[in-house]
Amino acid sequence: MPAPAKFITYIDAHKDAFIARLGEAVAIPSVSGDPSHRPDVIKMSGYIKSLLEPLGVKVELKDVGMEKQPDGSELPLPPVVFGTLGDDPNKKTVLLYAHYDVQPALVSDGWNTDPFKLTPDKEGRLFGRGSTDDKGPLIAWINIVEAHVTQGIELPVNIKFCLEGMEESGSEGLDDLIEKEKDGFFKSCDCVCICDNYWMNDRTPCLTYGVRGMSYYRIIVSGPARDLHSGLFGNTVHEPMTDLILLMSKLVTPSGEIMIPGLDKLVAPLTDSEKKRYETIDFALTDIEEQVGAKIVLSDDKSQVLMGRMRNPSLSLHGIEGAFYGPGAKTVIPAKVQGKFSIRLVPNMTPENVDPLVIKYLYDEFAKLKSKNTLKIENIHAGKAWMADPDHWNYRAAIKATEEVYKKTPDLTREGGSIPVTLTFADVLGLNVLLLPMGRGDDGAHSTNEKLDTFNYIEGTKLLGTYLHEIAVTN
Amino acid sequence: MPAPAKFITYIDAHKDAFIARLGEAVAIPSVSGDPSHRPDVIKMSGYIKSLLEPLGVKVELKDVGMEKQPDGSELPLPPVVFGTLGDDPNKKTVLLYAHYDVQPALVSDGWNTDPFKLTPDKEGRLFGRGSTDDKGPLIAWINIVEAHVTQGIELPVNIKFCLEGMEESGSEGLDDLIEKEKDGFFKSCDCVCICDNYWMNDRTPCLTYGVRGMSYYRIIVSGPARDLHSGLFGNTVHEPMTDLILLMSKLVTPSGEIMIPGLDKLVAPLTDSEKKRYETIDFALTDIEEQVGAKIVLSDDKSQVLMGRMRNPSLSLHGIEGAFYGPGAKTVIPAKVQGKFSIRLVPNMTPENVDPLVIKYLYDEFAKLKSKNTLKIENIHAGKAWMADPDHWNYRAAIKATEEVYKKTPDLTREGGSIPVTLTFADVLGLNVLLLPMGRGDDGAHSTNEKLDTFNYIEGTKLLGTYLHEIAVTN
Repeated sequence: MPAPAKFITYIDAHKDAFIARLGEAVAIPSVSGDPSHRPDVIKMSGYIKSLLEPLGVKVELKDVGMEKQPDGSELPLPPVVFGTLGDDPNKKTVLLYAHYDVQPALVSDGWNTDPFKLTPDKEGRLFGRGSTDDKGPLIAWINIVEAHVTQGIELPVNIKFCLEGMEESGSEGLDDLIEKEKDGFFKSCDCVCICDNYWMNDRTPCLTYGVRGMSYYRIIVSGPARDLHSGLFGNTVHEPMTDLILLMSKLVTPSGEIMIPGLDKLVAPLTDSEKKRYETIDFALTDIEEQVGAKIVLSDDKSQVLMGRMRNPSLSLHGIEGAFYGPGAKTVIPAKVQGKFSIRLVPNMTPENVDPLVIKYLYDEFAKLKSKNTLKIENIHAGKAWMADPDHWNYRAAIKATEEVYKKTPDLTREGGSIPVTLTFADVLGLNVLLLPMGRGDDGAHSTNEKLDTFNYIEGTKLLGTYLHEIAVTN
Repeated sequence: MPAPAKFITYIDAHKDAFIARLGEAVAIPSVSGDPSHRPDVIKMSGYIKSLLEPLGVKVELKDVGMEKQPDGSELPLPPVVFGTLGDDPNKKTVLLYAHYDVQPALVSDGWNTDPFKLTPDKEGRLFGRGSTDDKGPLIAWINIVEAHVTQGIELPVNIKFCLEGMEESGSEGLDDLIEKEKDGFFKSCDCVCICDNYWMNDRTPCLTYGVRGMSYYRIIVSGPARDLHSGLFGNTVHEPMTDLILLMSKLVTPSGEIMIPGLDKLVAPLTDSEKKRYETIDFALTDIEEQVGAKIVLSDDKSQVLMGRMRNPSLSLHGIEGAFYGPGAKTVIPAKVQGKFSIRLVPNMTPENVDPLVIKYLYDEFAKLKSKNTLKIENIHAGKAWMADPDHWNYRAAIKATEEVYKKTPDLTREGGSIPVTLTFADVLGLNVLLLPMGRGDDGAHSTNEKLDTFNYIEGTKLLGTYLHEIAVTN
């Protein structure tokens, strides 16, 4: 069921008002990572409450406790804004997630305009910190509720809002709250929609149904009790760097294939329907070349490149702690070196089934070196992959809504990096989670001159509203 | 011809006076690396002049110009002290090199005593900065001249002193002066004796007839225009770190063998007489284990280990510039990384014959990777090896003198690191150069609590004096 014409008309008619409202939101510098801005983050939660309550949304500001500072002091965490609209047992209940905090921004970082003053240009691009990440989507949901309430359009679903203020700083407090409220606030939810990522390019809408996880390792090789001079001890003792570099060279080939035996068997097989998805995604190798600024794409095959990013694991060598890293020529034999690498995990890999393979392999390879140095391997950071079923009614409704608003079938994509809250909603609540992006790939979410196109803001508002109407009728 | 008994008696009788004189020298904090101490370095040259001139030595303080400071200002370089004693055409002329500057030293670095107050302990160890490096040997030469002049003992050789004040800071100005004076001040010299290194242990005197050279390289691999996020681009693009680590892994085996084809053919063959030298050197694997603080020696074969340090090249991997080097877990794909490694050169390797082999090999190996990244190899620092003929009369005289004073045949050793002035004397003046050490391997030359044993100071003074008498009669 497409959204009523009255809804679409209202959105178009209120374009200027909606931009002004986004401007109000951007003007509150709710930088969660900067303690001096914590009052602004908290102010932002009050601002949201002040918009939602007059529309009939029942709002609760959930206290999630204090944040420990490096100096030992404590700072209050901004509340998670819970909102409830409707409790009709005959309607589906959709959980809408967004965040109201932003990344830091200073004019001196290279902004062309004041980052906390939403500034349009001639092409209708709205520049400002948080415009696309994530105040645009958050305000859009409020605009949608306003359109329904003021125009007397019945909301086709019950809505639960979960709006957090610490997303840019590790979502502190949120996981515990979700766990605690899973049989409370979240009990009636039927599906989740998160509007907090981006199209793959500037042309084609997409829905995102998976993100990779990660296991981050360090390989520690220790030898002498202290750093040595290579003139005095070169070719005399086992050098930790020699061993470490050899071990690191056994992890991944120049074409990106992981060399650790058994890992490939953990990767979920590619089905025909999934394969077809990569073939039809609107994507060109030049998109990647532009993003990285060099012609270094691993393959000429579009599907292969997409699968490398979305559905296959990757292994990257990040660097070495303890070795010489400065400019110039230092003749040191470092005594203890730590090689850092990470593996991006995809279904059905988990830190639990990957760790033993990685660790055994590296110890086996080290044994072959016949070195007298000592080896230790540690997983220092781990997170699972997340993948939703893109054939679920939640996705089919979003596809339909996209086709209605953009006259295009959205690409079904997966992302290479992690979005931890996605996994929490899926695991703790056991719900299908949809990532339904509003902005474009070139919005510069964490960068200088972050922007949201007016086109994406207004059409995206229509899309999110239409999505609510579609889920009501999709099964 | 052993030194006259009168000489030996004088040295023993003046032990306390000689220690007091070394104390005066140590009390002048002639730290060449600290601009605020430059006046002290210059004062030290005057102190030496004030000791030499009353003994009949013709002294010249050679101005070697100014030193540019990082802030653009200029500081006068301390003069090189030239001294001449005797010009008998029937005698050999020996060039004696030492340096009068020292490394920095602060009590707060961990000294147990004031580093600029020579402090004896109960075992007769004389603690103080410069005690062994190199004021002890320098003052010993003056003591020797004093013994001859005051006792009316004829000096068996003509002496030329070349005493510099910038050795701990790159010997700035010295090479140019040697080049300029090769047909002037240095013209009549027949051999060189440098007393500025150490026994290999605390037991057995040695003569040192070679030091390794060095070629220091960087391997630069460039890919994307900027650092990338491994979640977004892992398994999508060619990662510079993957290529670099693979190249660095092809350089040296865990047992220290260099993998670059052709390098081994440049190494001078091992002769039987040289081989015998390693077998007889007083050295135990535990000496190395103690020095490095771990049981990581490459071989159980003593000669093999000594040859690894003294007569074979070594290749050490020092580190990577441009990669992640901090603690913790950063998910970066570095855009441009520079791997640093160096090769210690031995006869007949030179930077000129080694560079092409290294560079060709790395480009060939890189081609095998089929990477779209770009590679550049640079030699950023090079110095030749030096080796003297240990069968020269200069060495035979020193061996005889050592046997007379210490009742032991000295070990003939080569050092792993570089002593650049050695090479300049040998190359520019075309003379046999002898490294005749006074101190022990545990003196801690550049470290805290530097010391010289009274035994080594006094017997070493006898040794250096006896050496002068021996070269007079050795052909």
